[in-house]
Amino acid sequence: MFALVIDDGALVWRERPDPVPGPGDVVVEVAAAGLNAADLLQRRGLYPAPPGVPADVPGLELAGRVAAVGDGVDASWVGRTVAALTGGGAQATHCVVPLEHLLAVPEGVSLIEAGGFPEAFCTAHDALVTQAGLGAGERLLVTGAAGGVGGAAVQIGRTLGAHVVALTRNRRHDDALRALGADEVVGVDDLAGSEPVDVVLELVGAATLPAALGRVRRRGRVVVVGVGSGARVELDLLAVMASRLTLTGSTLRSRTRVEKADVVARVERDLGPRWRAGELRVPIAEVVDAREGERAYDAFARPGKFGKVVLRVGPA
Amino acid sequence: MFALVIDDGALVWRERPDPVPGPGDVVVEVAAAGLNAADLLQRRGLYPAPPGVPADVPGLELAGRVAAVGDGVDASWVGRTVAALTGGGAQATHCVVPLEHLLAVPEGVSLIEAGGFPEAFCTAHDALVTQAGLGAGERLLVTGAAGGVGGAAVQIGRTLGAHVVALTRNRRHDDALRALGADEVVGVDDLAGSEPVDVVLELVGAATLPAALGRVRRRGRVVVVGVGSGARVELDLLAVMASRLTLTGSTLRSRTRVEKADVVARVERDLGPRWRAGELRVPIAEVVDAREGERAYDAFARPGKFGKVVLRVGPA
Repeated sequence: MFALVIDDGALVWRERPDPVPGPGDVVVEVAAAGLNAADLLQRRGLYPAPPGVPADVPGLELAGRVAAVGDGVDASWVGRTVAALTGGGAQATHCVVPLEHLLAVPEGVSLIEAGGFPEAFCTAHDALVTQAGLGAGERLLVTGAAGGVGGAAVQIGRTLGAHVVALTRNRRHDDALRALGADEVVGVDDLAGSEPVDVVLELVGAATLPAALGRVRRRGRVVVVGVGSGARVELDLLAVMASRLTLTGSTLRSRTRVEKADVVARVERDLGPRWRAGELRVPIAEVVDAREGERAYDAFARPGKFGKVVLRVGPA
Repeated sequence: MFALVIDDGALVWRERPDPVPGPGDVVVEVAAAGLNAADLLQRRGLYPAPPGVPADVPGLELAGRVAAVGDGVDASWVGRTVAALTGGGAQATHCVVPLEHLLAVPEGVSLIEAGGFPEAFCTAHDALVTQAGLGAGERLLVTGAAGGVGGAAVQIGRTLGAHVVALTRNRRHDDALRALGADEVVGVDDLAGSEPVDVVLELVGAATLPAALGRVRRRGRVVVVGVGSGARVELDLLAVMASRLTLTGSTLRSRTRVEKADVVARVERDLGPRWRAGELRVPIAEVVDAREGERAYDAFARPGKFGKVVLRVGPA
């Protein structure tokens, strides 16, 4: 197989030994693999891969076709079109995935879109539903709403019946965010005068969190999932106490196989029917050939994009 | 009645109109009222009283005898010995309390001890059980363990089967903390080399929280209830994400009547039998006559004490 290998900070498309599925695993022949902020951190040596996944091949999500199965997996899986949440290694022509981390790809959805679905929607669903317990009628603030997880969160917020406030630095995206389901689109400077919210999904970090914390209602829940603008913030504990705020940090990557299976199962249950009904989509900012890894990572890092950057690895 | 009134920052024992119970309330003739950090903040104008309680009479807990009942409360309550969680106003000869905020005082427990029980044990129980979900076999770190809430938390941690690590600045208290149920007693400088913990009850604030955050295990829960040493801390959000930490701030005082009733009911259910069995106690640092309010508040502010400062208001 070939893989996008981090070699001393550079990204090189390089041949690697073919992966062998363990019991309960499948090998997916990858068609497309979405990029995530974690990939850029990993490349800079800031986010080591968890045990059991390749240390130097990034990629937390993919779509493709099952090419082989491990012990205990029915051979009828071979040839099926799937998307998958992975702990790493997705930016390659082949990737080993536990069977229970697969998502069915709806008919009519391209593998490019499907390759940008799992990490974005699993992260947003876990944060909003499992961590924050977002309810109908509550107000949700999504910072970094124009990114991959942000767009997923806006759509999930809409399906839950929440009032969705999308925060973006780039007001060009207003119409696109409203089309995804945002009830309001704001910039960080608008927050001070806005209605308080019950739940914050923080995808930006130091540049937005202090302003967001200032708008959280009593018993509010703040889930921090991305900190691209900086990770250090000053917290006023008296304010946290007074509003009985809960702040949770979360990543999917470091979770156990069983924990990830649970996240995927919840997404399949809650979001699968809506994905199949065409109610959820993956906005694509750019599709880049996997042999041009550097160009893809540059595209991801560029401010002002809307939606996912997806690597095209094989025929989609 | 007489009450300890905050008058331009001074504490004055002064006559006030007798309180009138509303429907479902009782009037307690106060024998003893514990001091809490919130009282000192309120005196400095930093912690305004919630609606419905006197704005200038501090006191969040008391013990005494029911002197009168409001509409809908059975007259047989009159004369009973009770302790109560209050939203303020407890440092007075008489205080109105909703019936459902009363706790039964076990036989053989002095009203002085009982007057220091409600806020300490309700706060610690709510934080450890309801907020943090502390489980048997988990490791609990209590900062400020020598204080009123700290001593309650050490005892509750022991009854839950947790491994209790008590942090105190004053190592004179080691034996007393072990007698309450601490498995280990540490200073803040010992934390770096200690085993990680699952739950932190933060009662001190800026002086201890950063070190405590550095010792929290994956999926750890941190509940902040006291910030006497300072309320501003820098948070490393990447570390929070990596460990999937949850930080919650909490106060009882601002809660609704129904929310407080729920806290009291849980304490009665979980801790009432143990209190009656003599398994829980309220260490008393000092008992001060209510007419000497300034002296009591000075005693509370003095570092190095062990247990509660309690005002003696009436015959105990």
